[in-house]
Amino acid sequence: MSAASTGDVPEDVLLARAAWSRLVEPGDPVAGAVVAALGPVDAVDWLRDCARSEPAVGGDPVGLPDRRLASAVARWVPRLEGLDAERDLRALDRRGGCLLVPEDPRWPSSLGDLGPTAPHALWVLGATDLHDLLRGAVAVIGARASTAYGEHVAATLAAGVCDAGRTVVSGGAYGIDAVAHRAALGAGGRTVAVLAGGVDRLYPAGNARLLGAVMDQGGALVSEVPPGSVPSRSRFLQRNRVIAAVSSGTVVVEAAWRSGALSTAGHAAALLRPVGAVPGPVTSVSSAGCHRLLREGQAVCVTDVPELLELVSPPDAGEPSGAVGPDDPRPRDPAARRLLESLPVRGGVAADRLARTAGLGLEEVRGWLGRLEVEGLVARSGDRWSRPCGPQ
Amino acid sequence: MSAASTGDVPEDVLLARAAWSRLVEPGDPVAGAVVAALGPVDAVDWLRDCARSEPAVGGDPVGLPDRRLASAVARWVPRLEGLDAERDLRALDRRGGCLLVPEDPRWPSSLGDLGPTAPHALWVLGATDLHDLLRGAVAVIGARASTAYGEHVAATLAAGVCDAGRTVVSGGAYGIDAVAHRAALGAGGRTVAVLAGGVDRLYPAGNARLLGAVMDQGGALVSEVPPGSVPSRSRFLQRNRVIAAVSSGTVVVEAAWRSGALSTAGHAAALLRPVGAVPGPVTSVSSAGCHRLLREGQAVCVTDVPELLELVSPPDAGEPSGAVGPDDPRPRDPAARRLLESLPVRGGVAADRLARTAGLGLEEVRGWLGRLEVEGLVARSGDRWSRPCGPQ
Repeated sequence: MSAASTGDVPEDVLLARAAWSRLVEPGDPVAGAVVAALGPVDAVDWLRDCARSEPAVGGDPVGLPDRRLASAVARWVPRLEGLDAERDLRALDRRGGCLLVPEDPRWPSSLGDLGPTAPHALWVLGATDLHDLLRGAVAVIGARASTAYGEHVAATLAAGVCDAGRTVVSGGAYGIDAVAHRAALGAGGRTVAVLAGGVDRLYPAGNARLLGAVMDQGGALVSEVPPGSVPSRSRFLQRNRVIAAVSSGTVVVEAAWRSGALSTAGHAAALLRPVGAVPGPVTSVSSAGCHRLLREGQAVCVTDVPELLELVSPPDAGEPSGAVGPDDPRPRDPAARRLLESLPVRGGVAADRLARTAGLGLEEVRGWLGRLEVEGLVARSGDRWSRPCGPQ
Repeated sequence: MSAASTGDVPEDVLLARAAWSRLVEPGDPVAGAVVAALGPVDAVDWLRDCARSEPAVGGDPVGLPDRRLASAVARWVPRLEGLDAERDLRALDRRGGCLLVPEDPRWPSSLGDLGPTAPHALWVLGATDLHDLLRGAVAVIGARASTAYGEHVAATLAAGVCDAGRTVVSGGAYGIDAVAHRAALGAGGRTVAVLAGGVDRLYPAGNARLLGAVMDQGGALVSEVPPGSVPSRSRFLQRNRVIAAVSSGTVVVEAAWRSGALSTAGHAAALLRPVGAVPGPVTSVSSAGCHRLLREGQAVCVTDVPELLELVSPPDAGEPSGAVGPDDPRPRDPAARRLLESLPVRGGVAADRLARTAGLGLEEVRGWLGRLEVEGLVARSGDRWSRPCGPQ
């Protein structure tokens, strides 16, 4: 188990964490509470005691209502049969993988925000220091049924994230996810695919080569379920909370009205992570979910890389936001503007005529004409005023 | 002055209002305050006194700082020269128009929300009962430089507004405005064009025929400046406040980053009217202004007619919002869902196997299987469970 145990984590902790990730479905908050209360090793022993003394539970370590704990134990006990954490770790090791656990300094600390629903362990292929790899990472996610438009935008955003030195996180699916991973690799950046099934099952199969490249080029494949686990629908939904939690922000590029990407956005919002949505044509069903997020105020409208980077780390107060257009050379005062507009296109006019046309007082007009002449915005010829020659 | 005096408004009030709309530029709050304090007729007399006794002002009717009032009077006095309200009314009358003033019951009362910047009068061609015509009206506005996409959406929204029995308000410009007016007419609805110049100057000239149709088919052309007035830039910007005020809501279909449509949206927001923005491709500069409104939280994302109608008049609390997708036939309980997903595609399995696969307790699995069998979502054969035959 060389690769699987390179961290400074005791072997029994590693095995216990691996066991818990096999025993329970992702996101089970009761398991999280039990493991937090007893520690992973003692929690496994406690569960074995429970199984032996059924139906009575072997003591209540977490102060839960009896029925809730008993029902949770009843969920976990059937999987004690055939449990073999060492076998799971060997399967990972054969692929050069590494089991990361919360006790490992390479564990992405952002997962702590998930509280009792945080993963028990991450089964990782590729780069193992996820704490480093995922610092400031941005999730670029979206529909499998993507359009050329969405793919173009996803590629632009993912490349921009990498150019900013950040990692692109996505779900390894067809469509927007695949484009995000591919564009990150194309930009020479690093990218992490969080999978719903085991990391030994590259799903979907059509993305196996892409996922291999993700792993080979400094990134990682990550799953909270052990090797051999199938990617079920509920695991996909739970996987989305991991994508949301390990990223400092999430942008949804395209999503149908009902889309898994919206569940990721919901998790990100619940974790107080910024969420962006890319608008698109209202005639495109692939943008309907993004528009829904915008309508419901769950996401900020993101249209380009600077807006995405601003979303995931707001600029310092002192910095210009870059969101303001070019300077307008015209005077800001509405009276001065009206005066300039009242100048005829050709020829000159007297100040009293200008006053009537602009609806301004004669003295005010005279005052402005003097100032505007200094600025080169009006020209004078005797007592007649005109537009200056040449470009203004 | 038959057409111009069909309301129950005294002749001198009508003439005084007409005079004020000639004397001051749109949106001058000092003029609004003076007219409100003295009444329109006495306010004209007061201004003539001011002009005779310059530089001293003929008494302060509004309690403004001296300098502010003096400066305002200095703006207005030059236009007393050549003032001829009767001539302006005759010019309107020759075109069969009507001068509406706040004293007329046909005046759109929504303009009162503009306070001292409300128009002094509206010069109207076409339908004269603007109070009726503009009740629940919706402004559909946008860029002159529109795209085929924006025009498609504008036409759909404008027709939908008319189908709901509401009037479409817009600015009579090329692009989105013209499409909105045209689609309203095509839907057999009524539409109002609020112009920045005099109603005798159909601007832009290329829309003259369309604007004629607006007037002829139950709608109206409206301006707060007298016949013969040119549509200057500042008048365009002030015109936008009238569009915003007479409408119960405003939707921006396409707009560049800097666009007059954004000024209308700003006025609508300031008047606490709902503002919508239609998203579009982030690759289209014609949608950049809409995305800006969405990003800055100034507008709600509007993608179709129901969303627009919901924006301008929120549905009753008891009504379904229509924004929810079709019912999902699957059970809402996550355990039941996981159980159903764990059923093999072909063949049957025993309950204990299902418990391990789904990560659920055996008793829970047995409980759910019974209920799901009743609902026809699982099938039983002996002690083995499978997916039911045929469509679920």
